[in-house]
Amino acid sequence: MLFRSLRAAVTATASIVAVGGVMAIMGAASPAKADEGMWTYDNFPIQTVNQRYGTRIDQAWLDRVRNASVRIQGCSASFVSEQGLILTNWHCVVGCSQELSTPEQDFVKNGFMAATREEERRCPGQTAEVLTEIVDVTDRVLGAGQGLEGAAFNAARSAEINRIQTEACAGDEKFNCQVISFYRGGKYALYKFRKYDDVRIVFAPENQAAFFGGDPDNFNFPRYALDAAFLRAYENGQPVNVGTNFLRWNPNAPAEGDVTFVSGNPGSTSRLLTMSQLERLRDQQLPITLIQASELRGRLLEYSLTGDEAKRVSFDPIFGLENSFKVFYGQQGALTDPAFMATKREAENELRARVAADPALVQQIGDPWGDLERVQTVARDLYLPFRQLEQSAGGGSQLYAYARAIVRASKNPNRTDAQRAQMATAIGAETPIYTDMEEIRLRYWLSKTREYLTVDHPSVKTLLGRESPEALAERLIAGTKLADPAFRTQALSMTTEELIAADPLFAFVAANDADAQAIGARWAAEVNAPTSRAAEKVAQARFAVYGTNQYPDATFSLRLSYGQVQGWTYRGVTVPAFTNMGGAYERATGSEPFNLAQAFIDNESRVNKETVFDFVSTNDIIGGNSGSPVINAAGEVIGTAFDGNIHSLGGSFGYDGELNRTVSVSTAAVTEALRNIYPSPRLLQELGVDRPQRRRR
Amino acid sequence: MLFRSLRAAVTATASIVAVGGVMAIMGAASPAKADEGMWTYDNFPIQTVNQRYGTRIDQAWLDRVRNASVRIQGCSASFVSEQGLILTNWHCVVGCSQELSTPEQDFVKNGFMAATREEERRCPGQTAEVLTEIVDVTDRVLGAGQGLEGAAFNAARSAEINRIQTEACAGDEKFNCQVISFYRGGKYALYKFRKYDDVRIVFAPENQAAFFGGDPDNFNFPRYALDAAFLRAYENGQPVNVGTNFLRWNPNAPAEGDVTFVSGNPGSTSRLLTMSQLERLRDQQLPITLIQASELRGRLLEYSLTGDEAKRVSFDPIFGLENSFKVFYGQQGALTDPAFMATKREAENELRARVAADPALVQQIGDPWGDLERVQTVARDLYLPFRQLEQSAGGGSQLYAYARAIVRASKNPNRTDAQRAQMATAIGAETPIYTDMEEIRLRYWLSKTREYLTVDHPSVKTLLGRESPEALAERLIAGTKLADPAFRTQALSMTTEELIAADPLFAFVAANDADAQAIGARWAAEVNAPTSRAAEKVAQARFAVYGTNQYPDATFSLRLSYGQVQGWTYRGVTVPAFTNMGGAYERATGSEPFNLAQAFIDNESRVNKETVFDFVSTNDIIGGNSGSPVINAAGEVIGTAFDGNIHSLGGSFGYDGELNRTVSVSTAAVTEALRNIYPSPRLLQELGVDRPQRRRR
Repeated sequence: MLFRSLRAAVTATASIVAVGGVMAIMGAASPAKADEGMWTYDNFPIQTVNQRYGTRIDQAWLDRVRNASVRIQGCSASFVSEQGLILTNWHCVVGCSQELSTPEQDFVKNGFMAATREEERRCPGQTAEVLTEIVDVTDRVLGAGQGLEGAAFNAARSAEINRIQTEACAGDEKFNCQVISFYRGGKYALYKFRKYDDVRIVFAPENQAAFFGGDPDNFNFPRYALDAAFLRAYENGQPVNVGTNFLRWNPNAPAEGDVTFVSGNPGSTSRLLTMSQLERLRDQQLPITLIQASELRGRLLEYSLTGDEAKRVSFDPIFGLENSFKVFYGQQGALTDPAFMATKREAENELRARVAADPALVQQIGDPWGDLERVQTVARDLYLPFRQLEQSAGGGSQLYAYARAIVRASKNPNRTDAQRAQMATAIGAETPIYTDMEEIRLRYWLSKTREYLTVDHPSVKTLLGRESPEALAERLIAGTKLADPAFRTQALSMTTEELIAADPLFAFVAANDADAQAIGARWAAEVNAPTSRAAEKVAQARFAVYGTNQYPDATFSLRLSYGQVQGWTYRGVTVPAFTNMGGAYERATGSEPFNLAQAFIDNESRVNKETVFDFVSTNDIIGGNSGSPVINAAGEVIGTAFDGNIHSLGGSFGYDGELNRTVSVSTAAVTEALRNIYPSPRLLQELGVDRPQRRRR
Repeated sequence: MLFRSLRAAVTATASIVAVGGVMAIMGAASPAKADEGMWTYDNFPIQTVNQRYGTRIDQAWLDRVRNASVRIQGCSASFVSEQGLILTNWHCVVGCSQELSTPEQDFVKNGFMAATREEERRCPGQTAEVLTEIVDVTDRVLGAGQGLEGAAFNAARSAEINRIQTEACAGDEKFNCQVISFYRGGKYALYKFRKYDDVRIVFAPENQAAFFGGDPDNFNFPRYALDAAFLRAYENGQPVNVGTNFLRWNPNAPAEGDVTFVSGNPGSTSRLLTMSQLERLRDQQLPITLIQASELRGRLLEYSLTGDEAKRVSFDPIFGLENSFKVFYGQQGALTDPAFMATKREAENELRARVAADPALVQQIGDPWGDLERVQTVARDLYLPFRQLEQSAGGGSQLYAYARAIVRASKNPNRTDAQRAQMATAIGAETPIYTDMEEIRLRYWLSKTREYLTVDHPSVKTLLGRESPEALAERLIAGTKLADPAFRTQALSMTTEELIAADPLFAFVAANDADAQAIGARWAAEVNAPTSRAAEKVAQARFAVYGTNQYPDATFSLRLSYGQVQGWTYRGVTVPAFTNMGGAYERATGSEPFNLAQAFIDNESRVNKETVFDFVSTNDIIGGNSGSPVINAAGEVIGTAFDGNIHSLGGSFGYDGELNRTVSVSTAAVTEALRNIYPSPRLLQELGVDRPQRRRR
């Protein structure tokens, strides 16, 4: 699943995303070829696409698609009706389904269908954002850090970025302004978003319909997943009227070779990293991430088997964790593939040779590759304490995350009103807390921290005192009142000392926060700052050598990719571009995760089994693109992207047009489901499908 | 812990053992320097040692130590009294303690002390072997495979090896003959062992005394572990009288700088592997091993928290798993350390250059490095199916292992009587089976096999049919009668068809065995056979270039290492060579695993806290050496080796005299424990300690 793992919190890494057993990856050092590229809307290769595919894309087309594209937490989406109806993936709303569920009513297992507008239920903390404006602010940002080093450099940059954001959005709560870095610092742009804070769930199928095949089929194809869902944006208690800024619903499946556009928010790629950066990922960060994620996975899987309620509450976390695991595993696969690394090395050598041949350029940028090599030595030393004490502290415990946010807020009186308001909303949201899971995560994190830093590390001594990880986790989770939103809200106005007195989890976080912040500061100053500076130089070199016809690494900001519906051939085996709904019935074994959803079983006789279910296309996407609309040349939505094939996991470091594929569920299948599996005349009407005539029963 | 992980069965790999963050490893390409070397008894550098340490070692000394050295399952040991008393590590007998335990009487937690001979209890399946003879059989073995390739080569070699073993041991059940490969096939020797089948437990301390500090302190120092235990060899129901073939017990601790010898069975090292072999380990085998072991670890840890009985039965498996994990993690640490790999590459380049400069040698050996590189390509393709379907099949389930052994026996009518008898003993042994653990292991293995080979792999389809891994594991474990030794014994005389009808686990194994054996055969023919041939050539090159003053890679056969008691200095921090018993009381926090054993608490006032507890020496040892006697120049036992420091984990690929250390528990500490913590006048008397005079209470 291509969502950007925000909730899963395996590692909070997120600076690296996806790779696999890829054959002939194109180096990103040279300009993009074939269907490669996650293009920003202000640099989309209109002409290339129109020539290649005979389309007639123009600026108006781009503007309309941009205005219909929606960014939600960790995912992408699109408006598909005038009344603010939003299409996305089931797996992008499963967190909401889980939060609205109770032991009596399980919306994850049974799905959710609002029969009327009134039954649409608000998703806690969910927002929807539409990109309205892009402004280049490169000069202002680059100017701010000049002549500075380390922490001072970071501070100056951050201050300038805050200024830009505040100037553009100050006083208007309906907008969110974000300065985003592109080309690893080669360019900065202000992205202004129209923001909706009240987002409600309209429809999500049963998990077994959406996630048929489960983890074994994840990132594989052929696939039979109804991974689609609807949300709706509200304002002042009413559905938002988006006017014409929505994508028309096309209920018909595309044909092989049809051009496809995917508009969404790829989370993160690392195609511009240098060899020394890739090698540290390969040798240190990925192995530890995979090893630790695997242990947590084992813990959660075993816990999930202890009862029905345990199974219910662990479903979504396990799903997120297994998804992240597969992505990281794919990355490691690419970085340990000698052929892949040889290609990357060749591309880097070419760029460096061309730079070396241009004395003026050398004068301008120096040797950023050498600088980055030195940074890796520092990063190797700092990574373990940084990871355990700061970056992944808490092991994904929600209560720990609340406690840390509140303790840090209490120590920072300089927060803006906007920051305070945003935090109050996040902290006060009604979210169910599952104490067993919280305890598992805390003890996992505490025990791994002791293991990786050793018993004799001063920070570990502070962390554990005379307690074992198990006893400490149990005491903290049993004793904390942080599961209560009212208490959290109240705590937001306390001093640090009051917090320490008020709750054992606050006391625990406060006792360890100095160490955590110190290693965080070192990482920022000694790794992030010099990396940013060097990466900017590499970006400048690339612009100088290859020009501006390039796309930047993904940064969870709106991008448009183009391609076509197409299967692929690997080791002599050809995988067709489509599956149909009948295939699900054939693949079903009756055993999890290959058991059919109940509604699929109950309505088998009604389902048109020839309906195209899922399909693949050559679009270049990655985690964060989940829920992105797949759009035809006419600008109509024909599907929603929810996955990549196994080869696409190499996408973090390079795109291979022969093998990398986007996996989408067709609007045809969603339409069929709304007719005959999860019947909803209301939604079919809203989508403009000619319902009475097409209905077959 | 330095035991050779036989029971743990993380992977059944065992062809690779230990590595860590090592600084300046010596390449094994050049002859051994400093205290490096795990020397065979027929090639011990007597003169070097006597010159370096002023000792007077001679052949008689070597013979006496060899005759007192004992090999037990996965560990080493030594006779320490005329009446067959055996000293080894607690962690080498904990499997026995666990097997003799019941929910009512937990010998792991509470320890075991036989007050009289009559209370000494037989350890199921435990044997003890003493090496009595070494015969060079290189010419016979190398001659057998000449002119053959692949499976035929393997078969010819195996047949000749079987012939040699049978000729030497036929008809005498008291002996075990084993042809062992040295220098990765450069030399073969027949090792003849006097074998004892009745081995009983005499004393094992509480686990909390032996394993104080648990996994966090494992492979670390300073250390406070009473990791010692006593067994006794019996024959015809009587203790074995070993005459003078035992090591005299010296109850006094050594001093810094004292010379130390360690006689034992290092399990496996990979110091002679070529770069391409190391790179495949680094890129494929180790990452997958670590990832899968971590998931199983998480599953077992979570299970262990579900109740007291779960905690009890999972203690030993978790301990074995965490130990293996740390060893593999250390190996990965070395192989991902650029400096380490550069040193190895340099050594290989030197050897290859010297070969290239000698046309006659090139003519003789060809290009084994190139051959091994090609083998790695094949190994990369075959590894996952080989691992999942054959090498690690069953995930460590004991019942699965029984079932597979019995099914395969039924298909092989050509077994010798000796093989039949040996198998009948192993299969019929009374071993407690913990069904929860069995089920966890099976479902873990089934789900990982589906994950790594994918749902659409034909062997996975056969394996799972229409069942989920969870349901299949539950059905097999609930339905099988294999936990009953009588049933297993009965099954040994059934045909394959009868087995299939008799038990669902037999039916399951039989249905999948063709696939498993096929991939096993491919691995043997396409990986093992060409690897053996090429490794022999590399060994020949090494003999030609560096002469015979070399030690071979470890092969779980008897070796002698020399060194001295010495601490070490790393990054400016000096770690002293000794701890004393008072240190345990200081380190204790009261929380697991840093809680003191009950007998330590109860007897604190009696314990002489100045007593040397554990100590480190420069001896070059590795997993399998656990329980090895540490011997002074006079041939007396002064400790038993149970661990290496963290740097020693690099020992699999190279030895660094500055940092690598053996960790041993002193006979002084064991003596003190037998006086004042676990009082045993009987044992003190048998060990010849002047008990009445030295006793202080």
